[in-house]
Amino acid sequence: MEVIRDPQQMQKRAMGWRRQGVVVGLVPTMGFLHDGHLSLVRIAKAKSDVVVLSLFVNPTQFGPNEDLDRYPSNIQRDLELCEQEGVSVVFMPDADAVYAADASVFVQEEQLSQGLCGLSRPIHFRGVLTVVAKLFNLVLPDLSVFGEKDAQQIRLIRRMVRDLNFPIKIISGPIVREADGVAMSSRNSNLDAASREQAVVLRKSLLDIQQAVSSGECSVAALRKRADGHLADTPLGALDYLEFVDNETLESVAEIGERAVLLAMAVQFPGARLIDNIVLERGAQAALQAK
Amino acid sequence: MEVIRDPQQMQKRAMGWRRQGVVVGLVPTMGFLHDGHLSLVRIAKAKSDVVVLSLFVNPTQFGPNEDLDRYPSNIQRDLELCEQEGVSVVFMPDADAVYAADASVFVQEEQLSQGLCGLSRPIHFRGVLTVVAKLFNLVLPDLSVFGEKDAQQIRLIRRMVRDLNFPIKIISGPIVREADGVAMSSRNSNLDAASREQAVVLRKSLLDIQQAVSSGECSVAALRKRADGHLADTPLGALDYLEFVDNETLESVAEIGERAVLLAMAVQFPGARLIDNIVLERGAQAALQAK
Repeated sequence: MEVIRDPQQMQKRAMGWRRQGVVVGLVPTMGFLHDGHLSLVRIAKAKSDVVVLSLFVNPTQFGPNEDLDRYPSNIQRDLELCEQEGVSVVFMPDADAVYAADASVFVQEEQLSQGLCGLSRPIHFRGVLTVVAKLFNLVLPDLSVFGEKDAQQIRLIRRMVRDLNFPIKIISGPIVREADGVAMSSRNSNLDAASREQAVVLRKSLLDIQQAVSSGECSVAALRKRADGHLADTPLGALDYLEFVDNETLESVAEIGERAVLLAMAVQFPGARLIDNIVLERGAQAALQAK
Repeated sequence: MEVIRDPQQMQKRAMGWRRQGVVVGLVPTMGFLHDGHLSLVRIAKAKSDVVVLSLFVNPTQFGPNEDLDRYPSNIQRDLELCEQEGVSVVFMPDADAVYAADASVFVQEEQLSQGLCGLSRPIHFRGVLTVVAKLFNLVLPDLSVFGEKDAQQIRLIRRMVRDLNFPIKIISGPIVREADGVAMSSRNSNLDAASREQAVVLRKSLLDIQQAVSSGECSVAALRKRADGHLADTPLGALDYLEFVDNETLESVAEIGERAVLLAMAVQFPGARLIDNIVLERGAQAALQAK
């Protein structure tokens, strides 16, 4: 396994692979790796000759009052995990090698990015899309793997690939969870014990709502109330949003209809803001029940 | 010579070239080709195995009251000229194959794009950078050639290549002029005879100012007045801007100093808005005079 820090060297290596016809898979991460990340590496590995894992805590996707300076890090452990998983190259650049001091070009999305996390994190997705575009151009992958936990992010990245015509296949990996159902996230390590215990509120709310949909409830107003009890039980978590949106357009829906609905949730705890989501499909549920 | 209309087919062809190690040069145009465009083709041809000329009147770079529907076109003649110049592929997509109806991802520049043409054409450069990023991803060129007539545009494209890390070399071609000094432009054909005659105002003003700089005048306020007489002589042309900016940062300068200055000008005629520019280098002039 090789560690590359210099973006120009990374790009040179990538152009060498390109000439040799090597299939390259990219897994972008901000480090502090957990089983969720490793599941993405395994997906990439199954479809590529060479897997590049990028490890870069991207400053442009953090707002001024967010947790950039508290984002957890354990590079030694990350490198050991990458080695074990058979990653070929860890690309680990310094921020000032990635961004010129007078950087002024950004990739911006103007529809899907407006709601959900975009509301409370207005510059977040501009930073995400910009750094992912840069990574695509530096690593020149044939495919890139992203986790479904960041549901809005992966939909935005697919949109960017479509709208800017990147010759790259985007693959999603399912959410990987802790034993109690909490979605794995590097940020979980910033929770104190009491908050970590209450972090189950996201998954419990989502499953409760999914259950109600399976039982035939279609009204979003009614479904939304199913989360109230769980939120009352977890006073350390302040609801940022609980939204029912079309799974493709991310536009709000008033009821669960034929089209798949993304149910997404963000809760702010004292140490970290957590997100989780589930895709509701009434058609699929109805088909299951009919069997 | 081959004409490709389908973006997916263009990208597939490009990926084939990539695998074969073919060096690809791209010349993006909006068609109605003139000797300025052909000079860019020759530059590309000298440095590439294969030259792709794109011919696409990009709707997203035109404002609502601009000349999108009057932009001149003569595709048959364009194709003949490309054939004569040894272009390998003319990429000529339809607008609805380039942009999805719900396209929502754009490339935006936030510093260099604010002044000069960006002032009177606020969405212009967002459209330019977005379509050039798309062309880069569809044609996958090793190098791409742009004309210096569009001085702000080429500086923005270089900035985009740097900030988004495209593995592409940007080459500029000098301005090609008509016998009377007017910079070649497809839009010149939209001028009536009287306007065409008065179009010399740009070149005359620029040369007059350059001459004054050679003679030692450094004050931008004084230099700016040198254009007044020319503009008074050409009543069909309304000055949009005459700006002295740092050649790299595009920030306004109050006098000609050691750093190169871009002197750029735009004049609105009844049939077309024309631009021209010249780079002023006091150091270079002084060195010339000292010889």
